[in-house]
Amino acid sequence: MVTNPILVEILRGEHVESVHRGAVAVCDSDGKLLLELGDVAQPVFPRSAVKAIQALPLVESGAADALGFGKRELALACASHRGEPAHVELAASMLSRGGLDETALECGSHWPHNHNAAVALARAGLSPSTLHNNCSGKHSGFLCTCRHLNLNHRGYVGYSHPFQAMIREAMEDVTGAKHHAGNSAIDGCSIPTYAIPIRSLARGFARMVTGAGLSAARAKAASRLMTACMAEPFFVSGSDSVDLPLMQAAPGRIFVKNAAEGVFCAAVPELGLGIALKCDDGAERGSAAMIAAILARLLKSDEALSEKLSGLARPAIPSRIGEAVGSVRPTPILAG
Amino acid sequence: MVTNPILVEILRGEHVESVHRGAVAVCDSDGKLLLELGDVAQPVFPRSAVKAIQALPLVESGAADALGFGKRELALACASHRGEPAHVELAASMLSRGGLDETALECGSHWPHNHNAAVALARAGLSPSTLHNNCSGKHSGFLCTCRHLNLNHRGYVGYSHPFQAMIREAMEDVTGAKHHAGNSAIDGCSIPTYAIPIRSLARGFARMVTGAGLSAARAKAASRLMTACMAEPFFVSGSDSVDLPLMQAAPGRIFVKNAAEGVFCAAVPELGLGIALKCDDGAERGSAAMIAAILARLLKSDEALSEKLSGLARPAIPSRIGEAVGSVRPTPILAG
Repeated sequence: MVTNPILVEILRGEHVESVHRGAVAVCDSDGKLLLELGDVAQPVFPRSAVKAIQALPLVESGAADALGFGKRELALACASHRGEPAHVELAASMLSRGGLDETALECGSHWPHNHNAAVALARAGLSPSTLHNNCSGKHSGFLCTCRHLNLNHRGYVGYSHPFQAMIREAMEDVTGAKHHAGNSAIDGCSIPTYAIPIRSLARGFARMVTGAGLSAARAKAASRLMTACMAEPFFVSGSDSVDLPLMQAAPGRIFVKNAAEGVFCAAVPELGLGIALKCDDGAERGSAAMIAAILARLLKSDEALSEKLSGLARPAIPSRIGEAVGSVRPTPILAG
Repeated sequence: MVTNPILVEILRGEHVESVHRGAVAVCDSDGKLLLELGDVAQPVFPRSAVKAIQALPLVESGAADALGFGKRELALACASHRGEPAHVELAASMLSRGGLDETALECGSHWPHNHNAAVALARAGLSPSTLHNNCSGKHSGFLCTCRHLNLNHRGYVGYSHPFQAMIREAMEDVTGAKHHAGNSAIDGCSIPTYAIPIRSLARGFARMVTGAGLSAARAKAASRLMTACMAEPFFVSGSDSVDLPLMQAAPGRIFVKNAAEGVFCAAVPELGLGIALKCDDGAERGSAAMIAAILARLLKSDEALSEKLSGLARPAIPSRIGEAVGSVRPTPILAG
């Protein structure tokens, strides 16, 4: 087994307190590796990082057009949102246009990831519903697709449901990696997730933004989803997400998607490149610094942008009175 | 630099999704290593793991007796509590007996770590105060000691305040490791924290429970603090902490103290041993599994207890509908 390198250090004062190891792949749409750190053949569960690929059937089936979904709805279908009121309302609206409501969602519920939204919900004496689940937009897209295709939506999260076979087909086509029961497990929102090589994920996102290697219809659907996410980054993420400032740093030029267990996928359309990475230990602070540092490196010809991205890879760590007592620091092997 | 071994695996289905590396030292009070995994000479910031040592001046100064502090108050002075009402009320009572209130606390505030306590606070339309800070018991103990010693308590968190010099003296005496500006940084609650070897921390906790190598007065104070923590584990931790079930598994026989950034310290009085460990990446789920697995290993002659501790090292990972979709697993090098 390859020991992945230390890519991110957590400093307290001037001392390294903790470290994050990981692997990073940057690929073009042919799967050619432009940059690799650590074991990029390592299979990882992409979790929420592939929601945009999982949303292809929503567009390809015609469901999105039939229901009048614009960029915000498509972005939310690709989102790990923070459970803010605008996210919850839009997910409810998508379901409603599909003739359903939140009782059809099989993702379970949790308190909003956005702190202010969670406090506001509690202050109102309410408890979270399935609409607050960070995956409710994705699931709403799934349900609307099932309805449009006249598939019985009950059990749509199950491995053997025909809708999940559609997802597998799209995932295999885009990433080139096999998806089957043997490399599957169950995600937090109850749908299957499949462990595939990091480099396959990177190639997949290069294809999502270039369309290369995809059918014309799929390339068009992919482009529409990626464009929607970059145009409406708040609806793919939320106010206090690590994704939002990365996409806001260069509107329309960077797609990123954070996922559980330290996975991040990204794409840079102008370079025709896809990026995938996994922080070995699953920490978001590690993966967030990794993706920001890699983007800063890939986009270094745009000095102002690269500096902004580099700053996002180095957040301060505050004490409880707000004093900076530590910081995050990409290692030279990562920062380049 | 030594690469610490993988001690804990995070499984999704049957597949390893993430891993946690770390180092573990088990020492007697002479500093003899009974067990070592990874680099035990590595300096780590113990953060909240050494609160019981930091509470020695409270007892040794006579402040605790003068203010009528019993086991609960002493436990809270050693605690990273979860901000539950009983914790908050007792911290306020300690301060009040010392002639102070929460405005004297310099630790800053944060929402209670206990989820139900946080929701209840929000539902009541309130915001957290310094009393909800997980360190408020420790800081209340500090303040009461300052008052008893007629030290001006303002700025008691600062490196150069005479009270912090008392803490350094106690820390050096118990652990045998040097504490100075060069190995210091600032903790989340604004007091200094000092990076010292893992094995020094383990030896320190062996001394805390055996008294060996300490003055008679210090040994008595240490024994009183450790006994208080084991007698009142809820006041050292809280309802949903990882510490509480470990101490409840064998009342009076196990002391554990969790800390930020993947540090755990522990002691087993009947074996005369101290334990210290650091999860490289700072994850609590890693350090919690490590300490439970090490305790299960050290106490294997008590089969029922060892099995219970081993179970605590292997929690299930639920989906949002509560289905077990993964689990935590100590590796053979850790489990023994």
